[in-house]
This record gives sequence, C-alpha cells and structure tokens, in this order.
Amino acid sequence: MIQFSINKNVFLQALNTTKRAISTKNAIPILSTVKITVTSDGITLTGSNGQISIEHFISIQDENAGLLISSPGAILLEAGFFINIVSSLPDVVVDFNEIEQKQVVLTSGKSEITLKGKDAEQYPRLQEVPTSKPLVLETKVLKQTINETAFAASLQESRPILTGVHFVLTDNKNLKTVATDSHRMSQRKLVLEKAGDDFNVVIPSRSLREFTVVFTDDIETVEVFFSNNQILFRSEHISFYTRLLEGTYPDTDRLIPTEFKTVAVFDTANLRHSMERARLLSNATQNGTVKLEIANNIVTAHVNSPEVGRVNEELDTLEVTGEDLVISFNPTYLIEALKATNSEQVKISFISSVRPFTVVPNSEGDDLIQLVTPVRTN
Amino acid sequence: MIQFSINKNVFLQALNTTKRAISTKNAIPILSTVKITVTSDGITLTGSNGQISIEHFISIQDENAGLLISSPGAILLEAGFFINIVSSLPDVVVDFNEIEQKQVVLTSGKSEITLKGKDAEQYPRLQEVPTSKPLVLETKVLKQTINETAFAASLQESRPILTGVHFVLTDNKNLKTVATDSHRMSQRKLVLEKAGDDFNVVIPSRSLREFTVVFTDDIETVEVFFSNNQILFRSEHISFYTRLLEGTYPDTDRLIPTEFKTVAVFDTANLRHSMERARLLSNATQNGTVKLEIANNIVTAHVNSPEVGRVNEELDTLEVTGEDLVISFNPTYLIEALKATNSEQVKISFISSVRPFTVVPNSEGDDLIQLVTPVRTN
Repeated sequence: MIQFSINKNVFLQALNTTKRAISTKNAIPILSTVKITVTSDGITLTGSNGQISIEHFISIQDENAGLLISSPGAILLEAGFFINIVSSLPDVVVDFNEIEQKQVVLTSGKSEITLKGKDAEQYPRLQEVPTSKPLVLETKVLKQTINETAFAASLQESRPILTGVHFVLTDNKNLKTVATDSHRMSQRKLVLEKAGDDFNVVIPSRSLREFTVVFTDDIETVEVFFSNNQILFRSEHISFYTRLLEGTYPDTDRLIPTEFKTVAVFDTANLRHSMERARLLSNATQNGTVKLEIANNIVTAHVNSPEVGRVNEELDTLEVTGEDLVISFNPTYLIEALKATNSEQVKISFISSVRPFTVVPNSEGDDLIQLVTPVRTN
Repeated sequence: MIQFSINKNVFLQALNTTKRAISTKNAIPILSTVKITVTSDGITLTGSNGQISIEHFISIQDENAGLLISSPGAILLEAGFFINIVSSLPDVVVDFNEIEQKQVVLTSGKSEITLKGKDAEQYPRLQEVPTSKPLVLETKVLKQTINETAFAASLQESRPILTGVHFVLTDNKNLKTVATDSHRMSQRKLVLEKAGDDFNVVIPSRSLREFTVVFTDDIETVEVFFSNNQILFRSEHISFYTRLLEGTYPDTDRLIPTEFKTVAVFDTANLRHSMERARLLSNATQNGTVKLEIANNIVTAHVNSPEVGRVNEELDTLEVTGEDLVISFNPTYLIEALKATNSEQVKISFISSVRPFTVVPNSEGDDLIQLVTPVRTN
C-alpha cells in the first residue's frame, strides 16, 4: 500500500498540470479521477479526458519535491476534490498513506484527512506511442506557431477535419502549419533547426491550446512522437498525448492568391483598435460587417447600424498602392488575424471586393500568411 | 443641443461609477440608459435601477477633466454600449456634439461615431432627499461597518426585512449596525466622532455592498441624509441614493447571550483555514456540519462523510477555559464570521450544544459581536 511524503507545493503544481486533461463532466466517470502511480523512482500522476492525456512525473531526484517513498502502489482519487484538499493542508509537507479498502490518509501538521479512493485497475489503459527517433522542437517556436494558427480552426463539428490544425513536415525540416474554418485561414511556414522524419497530421485545435498552457515557458524543448492516431509531446516531466483527427485535410495552397490589385500597409495596433471600434457598431447590424473604402490612397472604415448609430473613420496608413476598392467583411476575422501577428506593421493585399484578401507581417522572411473572405453586401 | 469636450479617462471613470446603479435587465427599459445633463457648471451623469441611483458630477473646475462646455442640455444614451464606445476611442480628448433627432456625434482623433440617443424627458424623476443637517461619517469607518455586518443579512425574500442591515443612532453618537439571516448574526457598535440626529433605518444589504465599491478609499468623508423612504450618501462628486426597507427590524439585543460555560481563544487565520478544510468534506455530508469537541482543554474538529472521507484535526488554541462540550454547526457561518473580523485573535464563547455561540475579537474596546446557531445532530 502506497506510502510517501512530499512537498505540498510541488505536489499541487503537478496535480494542477495533470488536471488540465481531466474533465468533471466526462461520459466515462472514472476519467474524473487522477491516477497516482508510485514506484521506487518517483510518482506519476495521470489524467485523461479520452482525447488528451497528461502524465506528470515527480522524481525522487527532484530536490524541491522532497519526495520520500516508503512503499509503492497505484490508486485513483477524485481529481478536483483531491486537489482542493491538498491545497488546503496546513503544513508544507504532506504524508500520503494508503490504508485498507483503498482509503488514503493525508497528514499535514495537526490535520488528518481520510479520503476514499478507487482501485487503479479500473483506469483505462492509455494508448501507447512508440518513443524512438524524436522530433525535437523549441517549445517557444511550437507555441508561437500554435498561437498563430489554431484560432483560425473551426469550432463547428459539421466538418470535423476543420476543427484541427494541419501540420506537415517535408524535406525533413520544412514545417507548414495551417488552419481554416472556411471563412478565414492562417498559415505559418518555418524551417526547423533540427531535422526529423516527414509527417502529415491534423491535430485538434483544442488539444493544441491545452498544450500551450501545460508546457510553460521554462520548458525549453519538447520531443514529438507519432503513432497512427496519436501524437505525444514530451518534456523532462510531462508527457502530453492527444489523438489525431482522421481524414484528409483540404488543399489550402490553392487558396492563397499571389497577384493583387491594391496593397495597403498599416500599423498593426492602430488598425486593430479601429476594427474594434467598428465591431462595436457592426455587432448591431444585420450582416455584421465593416466596409473599407480605398480611394485616392486614403483608407476609410464605415459601419451603419439603423438601430444604434454609425462609425466613419479614416485609418492611419503607412503606404497605399494600386486601384480604388470597396470591400466589406466581418471585422472579428481581421481583429483575430492582427492579434495573431507579432509584427508591428501588416501588409494587406486585395484583388477585388469578392475575393479573399491576405494579411501578412510587413517584414522580410516572416512566413505567416492569413486570408479573410469578404462578405457580399448590396 | 449639447456640445462639450472632455478628457476620455475622466469621463470613462465617471461613467463606470454611474453604471454600478444601471442594470441591463431592468423591467423599465429606459433605466438601461445613462442620463447626461450638461449645465454651465459641469456634467451630471445619472444611473438608476429603481432601488439605487447614482449621480456623478464632473465640474468645469476639475483640471484633470479638461471640460469645455459650449452648449448645455440633457440626453439619454444606452449605458453599456456608450461606455464601450467611449473606451474604444483613439484620442485622449472626446468631442461630444448633439445633432438633430437626439443623435450624438463623438469625435476623437480621426474617428467619428454617431449614436442614437433618447429624449431626457423620458427619464423617471428620482425622489428627492432633503440635504440639510448632514450626518458626517468617515468613509473608511462606514465601509468597515458594512463589511463586518452586511454579509450576515439574508439573501432570501421570504422575510424582506432581514435582507437589510439595521442602522440605529442613539444619543446622537452611538451607532449600532446589525444584520442577521436567523442562522447567524453580526453586530457592530461604535461611537461617532461627529454627532448627528438619531435615526433608525434598515438599508438593503445589496445597496450597501454597492456603496462600498462606489465610494473608493480616496473619498475621506461621506455626508448622510435621510428622507422617509430613502437614504442619500454624498461626497464631493457622487450622490448615492438607495431606498430603505419598510417594516420593523426584529429586536436582536435579546438574542445576545452574556453568560457562558466554555470559552476558547483562537488565532483567527488558523481557525479559518481549519474550517475551510472541514468544509471541503462537510459539503459532501447530509447536514453539512462540522463537529467541534472540547475535552480537557483540547479542541478538535471532525467531519465524517460516508461518500468521500473524513477529517480529524486538533485546532491550535491560545486559551481554553470551562466545561467540556460537543457542538455541530455549518462551518461556512464561522468562516464568514472570521473573515469579517479584523482582529488577529478571536474569542468564541459557548453555552451548550444547542445554544448560539458568540465570536468576538480578542481585544479590548472592539465592539463587534457575532452569533452562530448550532445544528442539532444526533
């Protein structure tokens, strides 16, 4: 029966990371528990919602953890409740003792709390991902790529494949990451520092957003492994599994235009604030759009809501070239594209009032391109 | 037609204060607007939900406001929407111009936003409170008194009078403030520095909580005025009106015991943390109680939930005197009583397992007393 003592704060942090994979309203009740597996090397905490699974390992080598293991074993405890209990304990050291009938006694200071656990055999077996030949990525780069693309994935299950982000590695080092909900698209290309085997997978955007929370900025690199239907992101302490989406991702390369009629360069923050003002009124209109007018190299934005009012604004531009144009679109798509752009300036390129326009950083070698589809109004 | 210009941030802060009285889901639709009244002296913003009304005055004397008034008038604008618009404006200066048909044009930088307003005549007339002979209170003292008592008021409308806090001034300077929901009670007594006319009113606890947010700590004193059914709290810029509750507040003095059998002194924070641990488990029990056992001057806390587990804990005490005792109660009432106590130590005094116990600061001259009623378990 399990017996160990540990630093409360280290234990709590590991529990909270693991809990990111645990949902309280899961169709499989046992998945609301955290699995605690104790061996002579350390403690593994496991949480899963069936889509994402997280394993967090606390080593006896970790000095901050102050981990003393007297007896190994495995047990399941209600995750949310157990974490609340641990965080409420009075002392910095927690003694964890399994007693009869899968009960756990936590002792800390003068407090003694007995909790009912469950047999670890009831926990579902997580699919395994072979861990040979890792692809090594900088965590920072992977997280930035996710932040630049995952928001553009669809939230609707009508076309499940579009709820994912398409990751493609070609020539062992050219990574393309793309997401679209068919109204807008975001694509990041970059060249990896360390080569890996080519792959072509679609990862649920929800899993990727969770990944960016779990892998904190102090984790420098992450190893990536693939199986048929799963991907594993692994750091020293954390293994993060997510299932992949099945099916073929649409060919997005053909959507990206290369010739334009009108090009304007904006300060990213200024343009975003203008669009946020426009959106306050466009939300009260029937089609929810803002109208951009480019005439004589002046760009103006217009919204007219019969109910609440109207906005007219001249936008600050750094450069405008090409033909005059009038185009209407949902300002939220442009706002989100601008939020995903780290560059201080963006270049927006138009073909016509009915063709998607592109939004790219106004800086050399930054291979991020976003598309926004206009809305026909008349 | 109204015409003025103003510093955006000063305007926004005043609007946000006024908005505290404005509810978006009011039965009277016109109360979702803010009334803007412009005179040669300044601007008054008015918001009301029918229970609470707030008037915020911005003077032309206020240098930070940079207020330039060209033409006076009054108009109504949708409060939430208008505040969002103002906060989104690009420049630090806002020009406010009324045009035909109750429309307002806001100009800031290159942005021009036109909003539809409503005729100020549609706004209900707020009841007036005569402002002679103010009672002057220190804001800090009044807010502390509210924080010590208002939480104990009832949230249920079954006995409306108990949703209020009873304020009584006798002998021109002895203030008693008391609230109870019949399960627990909190009473603060203090002697005012400046005398006033005696009064006896019941103020809705919700209004008082709003008061503590609206009157920020930089407002040193507040003038208090009474009418038949209203109370007005006034500072230099803010007038805060609330209706009073009608009816006679129950006699709470007779509830306060004076002789005890068992007395224990605790560190306030330690006791609170113990009760918070106990509550994690008592929430999963049928009667939701913690059992306190006092035996041989040792105090222990116990909860036993057949579903999730049990807690047993020896409580740190500073002093225990009197008879042995076993008493059960809802730990939330004690936790809230301890939260309302600023003293580092509290003295808890018991009569028996079926009589309310008192919680008082363990310091001379701090006249706060709280009662908690036990729960009979058997």
